[in-house]
Amino acid sequence: MRKPGAKIKFGVYGTATGANSSGWRHPDAAADMGMNIEAAAAMAQLAEDALMDFVFLADSMAMRGHDWEILSRGSTRYVAQFEPLTLLSALAMVTTHIGLVATLNTSYEEPYLLARRFASLDLLSGGRAGWNLVTSSNIEEAGNFSREEHPDHAERYDRAIEFARIVRGLWFSWDDNAFPVDKQSGIFFDARKLHLLNHKGKHFSVRGPLNVPPSPQRHPVMVQAGASEPGKELAAEFAETIFGGHATMADAQKFYADVKGRMAKYGRSPDELVIMPGVSIYVADSKDEAQRKRDELLELVDPVVGRDFLKHILGDVIDLSRFGENDHLPRELPPSNANKSYQEKLLKLAHEENLTLRQLYMRQASKGAYPIIGTPSEVADELQQWFEEEAADGFIFLMDYFPTSLEDFKRLVVPELQRRGLYRTAYEGTTLRGNLGLPLPRRP
Amino acid sequence: MRKPGAKIKFGVYGTATGANSSGWRHPDAAADMGMNIEAAAAMAQLAEDALMDFVFLADSMAMRGHDWEILSRGSTRYVAQFEPLTLLSALAMVTTHIGLVATLNTSYEEPYLLARRFASLDLLSGGRAGWNLVTSSNIEEAGNFSREEHPDHAERYDRAIEFARIVRGLWFSWDDNAFPVDKQSGIFFDARKLHLLNHKGKHFSVRGPLNVPPSPQRHPVMVQAGASEPGKELAAEFAETIFGGHATMADAQKFYADVKGRMAKYGRSPDELVIMPGVSIYVADSKDEAQRKRDELLELVDPVVGRDFLKHILGDVIDLSRFGENDHLPRELPPSNANKSYQEKLLKLAHEENLTLRQLYMRQASKGAYPIIGTPSEVADELQQWFEEEAADGFIFLMDYFPTSLEDFKRLVVPELQRRGLYRTAYEGTTLRGNLGLPLPRRP
Repeated sequence: MRKPGAKIKFGVYGTATGANSSGWRHPDAAADMGMNIEAAAAMAQLAEDALMDFVFLADSMAMRGHDWEILSRGSTRYVAQFEPLTLLSALAMVTTHIGLVATLNTSYEEPYLLARRFASLDLLSGGRAGWNLVTSSNIEEAGNFSREEHPDHAERYDRAIEFARIVRGLWFSWDDNAFPVDKQSGIFFDARKLHLLNHKGKHFSVRGPLNVPPSPQRHPVMVQAGASEPGKELAAEFAETIFGGHATMADAQKFYADVKGRMAKYGRSPDELVIMPGVSIYVADSKDEAQRKRDELLELVDPVVGRDFLKHILGDVIDLSRFGENDHLPRELPPSNANKSYQEKLLKLAHEENLTLRQLYMRQASKGAYPIIGTPSEVADELQQWFEEEAADGFIFLMDYFPTSLEDFKRLVVPELQRRGLYRTAYEGTTLRGNLGLPLPRRP
Repeated sequence: MRKPGAKIKFGVYGTATGANSSGWRHPDAAADMGMNIEAAAAMAQLAEDALMDFVFLADSMAMRGHDWEILSRGSTRYVAQFEPLTLLSALAMVTTHIGLVATLNTSYEEPYLLARRFASLDLLSGGRAGWNLVTSSNIEEAGNFSREEHPDHAERYDRAIEFARIVRGLWFSWDDNAFPVDKQSGIFFDARKLHLLNHKGKHFSVRGPLNVPPSPQRHPVMVQAGASEPGKELAAEFAETIFGGHATMADAQKFYADVKGRMAKYGRSPDELVIMPGVSIYVADSKDEAQRKRDELLELVDPVVGRDFLKHILGDVIDLSRFGENDHLPRELPPSNANKSYQEKLLKLAHEENLTLRQLYMRQASKGAYPIIGTPSEVADELQQWFEEEAADGFIFLMDYFPTSLEDFKRLVVPELQRRGLYRTAYEGTTLRGNLGLPLPRRP
């Protein structure tokens, strides 16, 4: 049961021009948003006008793929865009309330550097930062970091958990009110309120302390997206927000109950975690019009790009050239080192909905987001059902392209949810944690 | 001989409240500037109002020292402040012309991550970024990066040179006009204008390409500060701007001729490097008043802090407690792994000017900057002499504290230099490279 007055939370996926691989080709799209600071600022400001909780930036430390002829046909494969931490630091200065969530990868970063930069973003934004913790499942990334192969799945999560503990520990280097900055006595900080970490572990030794003060929300919100077994366990221990991906509401409910059920053993309450599946939304005054919007967009998906999308997720274990546009994929695939949860979800989706190859890659064009299509009332019905039946505490809105997708959301969906009492009419607070309804974190 | 109309370049040292360890204690100082984004923004805007070339941020990936009772008495030992890349990304949005130079350390970073973040800052600021390349000479930093000791001086420079080559190579991943972003044809980028790096070296293997497009100045300006033999060699190969530190004009002239003389063997012209010694400036309507300003400030230096400053530079090889405030240091020190160029300069300064311990640490309170004290005309005379006699192409202004030091510079020094035709009256261009008079870089 939801508390009376509980609101649905929303983040917007703000990388490049949006989440749909053909979105940049739409006549109304700001196609260069990923490399145009004015467009990126306009996006964050529009999301703030729509009272959304945060801008979410995905990331990759390499292009996703190595066939440049294929890559050159799109913007969603991390081919060329701002780096998330620098972009969000810039966006902090042209917004006042919206949260700023960046994806950073634990596989090739140093925990001290990551903790420090996020703390700095958090401080300069007045407590609006979030860190989406991911591990690398991308062979192209390994090649940029002096490795032939990326570490396997279990090893990556082992490192990620130690990494997350160090980062969280460093973020508690300073107690509240540690800086008297007293000119008379000459005391800049109170040494009794400073703490060494002295971490010595399997992967890292980190002494600390962090040389950045805490923000009004103490430290950035911890976000996580992995849906594998170790991913869910890591989420139960650390995550305050989860960016999920589910083909059906039943899947989302199962995931929701599963992860929230694991939290007690880490001494955490289910209220300390906001679960947000990814959705794409096609909304118009009639359902037909909404469906037409979607069809028009998906028709722009280049088959070369679409097939490569599937190949990327399936990890080179199947020769897609043997399948025609209207064929169906086999049920079983050999094991590989690709991200398992994505593989499994993709095959499940294809078989449950009996999708052809073209239908499947069109669906993947929007990062595999769950599509919601209809009038404002129909869209709100579906969001409300997911929220009330505990499939979601909120959603990551995978806008197909900027600005139209986000404008439609603000103009049509927000007022309908507000009428139902399910969406804020003003920001509750000034920090990301405050707006998400999350408690101030305590020293672990 | 200077070209007619040549201007003196100026950067402002903008870390924490300023470069003087007692600056934050001055009644007029914005003591918390290092952790207050409004104050940091005001500093960058005032420097831009003064038509300076860039804001320069120093950095350390750890507090400089481990005695918290000593550290707690100051702000200049990197105890708690914004991280440079995130801060400069924020400042990019509240300024339009001034350059943004951040110190980042090659000893514990990954070249791909560093190249990418600087390219992103450069792009979002419209071509105003600079990278001050340093190596770690700080044992506290090693403890935050899973090491017992930092690598020795030669090893650090060997890594730094390979690191700089990789970063510069990655910055040339894209030719000019590589992004048609053509909605009709579906071509986002031109694959013929993208280049792999495929670096395989002693310390790193980095495949590339970088997934950030180039800025209008192609890539960030390369800044360097080391004055050791390998430091000067690295500067001759890579540096476009040098932040120097010299006790006398003769020393500065010798350094200037030395480094510029090494450039030819790397196929570079002396015009491709701007040498900027660090200075502190005390200016008032009379010389006595200027001297009084300085004395007042230095009287605020806490002896505990001052002695620790010397100990930090001298690397624990001498027991300073054996020396009184009015004693003199010995001429010779045993070898150590501390930064040699700083050690040598410190001893030279103490002996040439016959400074007592207290006088020496007072001088060090402003990061060892060369002090210029006098009326606007006297200050301009000295700056002009250094400039015309090839001791300097410009200066890093180590402001003692914000805002007064910078206000005095703008109000008193800038108009006098403008009257002499030695200071710009408007920005020449929109990029840092354009304002510094540096050519667009070519693919190495």
